[in-house]
Amino acid sequence: MNVIAKGRPKGRLVGVGTGPGDPELLTLKAARILAEADVVAYFAKRGNNSNARAIVEARFRPDMLELPLLYPVTTEIDKDHDDYRSQIADFYEESAEKVAEHLGAGRMVAVLSEGDPLFYGSYMHLHVRLAHRFPTEVIPGVTAMSGCWSATGLPIVQGDDVLSVLPGTMSEFELTRRLADTDAAVIMKVGRNLPKIRRALEATGKLTRAVYVERGTMPGSVSMRLTEKQDDKAPYFAIVLVAGWSARPGASGAKP
Amino acid sequence: MNVIAKGRPKGRLVGVGTGPGDPELLTLKAARILAEADVVAYFAKRGNNSNARAIVEARFRPDMLELPLLYPVTTEIDKDHDDYRSQIADFYEESAEKVAEHLGAGRMVAVLSEGDPLFYGSYMHLHVRLAHRFPTEVIPGVTAMSGCWSATGLPIVQGDDVLSVLPGTMSEFELTRRLADTDAAVIMKVGRNLPKIRRALEATGKLTRAVYVERGTMPGSVSMRLTEKQDDKAPYFAIVLVAGWSARPGASGAKP
Repeated sequence: MNVIAKGRPKGRLVGVGTGPGDPELLTLKAARILAEADVVAYFAKRGNNSNARAIVEARFRPDMLELPLLYPVTTEIDKDHDDYRSQIADFYEESAEKVAEHLGAGRMVAVLSEGDPLFYGSYMHLHVRLAHRFPTEVIPGVTAMSGCWSATGLPIVQGDDVLSVLPGTMSEFELTRRLADTDAAVIMKVGRNLPKIRRALEATGKLTRAVYVERGTMPGSVSMRLTEKQDDKAPYFAIVLVAGWSARPGASGAKP
Repeated sequence: MNVIAKGRPKGRLVGVGTGPGDPELLTLKAARILAEADVVAYFAKRGNNSNARAIVEARFRPDMLELPLLYPVTTEIDKDHDDYRSQIADFYEESAEKVAEHLGAGRMVAVLSEGDPLFYGSYMHLHVRLAHRFPTEVIPGVTAMSGCWSATGLPIVQGDDVLSVLPGTMSEFELTRRLADTDAAVIMKVGRNLPKIRRALEATGKLTRAVYVERGTMPGSVSMRLTEKQDDKAPYFAIVLVAGWSARPGASGAKP
């Protein structure tokens, strides 16, 4: 018999992008990892379901361990407050140690991440704490923004277009300045920022080109020109898209 | 027997993102479409292989028609010249009509696109010409940039980071100005622009954080800190990444 591993076997950490929502937008590689992993971990808010978990739940096996990592705080403390920062930092440390225990025992741990793990994903908080200690791999996924522009058939960028990905949380001045200075834009974290986003788009002459998308490739997906959308109710994870190419002289009118 | 379709059956156009290079980074949906499609079309330069075709070639079926769409011009005429523009526009029109013939005959045509079809992909030239005439669907794919930051384990953006996707073709002034004004950046179309990109990164204090990646998830992939890369040989499709989050005070050192 071969004796390859001496001492404790070393586990493997895999960050798995689950794609934007449609379970069929999982990659073949992510599907294989889920068929092989010993432990599947994911971040979630207490009392909320994890979107990433919901996307791949049908692939969970009875012999797979499930490791939910539940955020200790939600909206009770201001995000910029020191107490929030320190609680969150402690939480990521503790989460990394929970994952490290499984890795140390030689288990393969798949950490789920909606969309792409290193693109605004929580997985990176484990990655930076563990990747130097254990063999690690990151499986990219289709991002929410790709899911949104594909669902609406909107050619977002072409040729030498500049694309800016902007959080809707920034100030109106900052948002206006950046929208004026880009060919194409993806505005994330819409929610209560929608009226401000609308004003910034109007000020830069881009409002009529803007497309509003909710839940991209998921069931109940909604998309419309932003000019047809009311300001009243927009989920935090809605996205506003402004295509670059369609505004070019000579481009065949790309219509959302 | 049911008679549902009156007259000619209507074909279906599907833009298929093949992902960044690794055939296992294809989505399950793209794999299904390739198992169902009657015709598979792709753009290629005369005498060159199509990367998108190479990624999914193993899935081609003997009963599937192959429709290569070969660019008529490459580097003989300046890209900004009117003759180039008009030749290319004619080519896209003719290509769209070739695809339309199959669609009109009731066939399902899968148009391959490396990465994501509507993110700098040639597929969009067919999309804007055909999507209003035939049932059309776009299957998003993992982008080359996601493939690159995942292969190098670089957390590109987090929280409220602004991400700028910039073509390396822009002027040094413009590149410097935009690099100074963003948290994270992806610089595409590197090639001969590398010395200029390096100077722009140096001028903005971001050179030491920059990572150079060739062929992302493909065989022969190369990645290194840009400071370790020579200026001499860089392929056009190499990418330079600058992570936003790692520069933040308080972020646990995200190291490429």
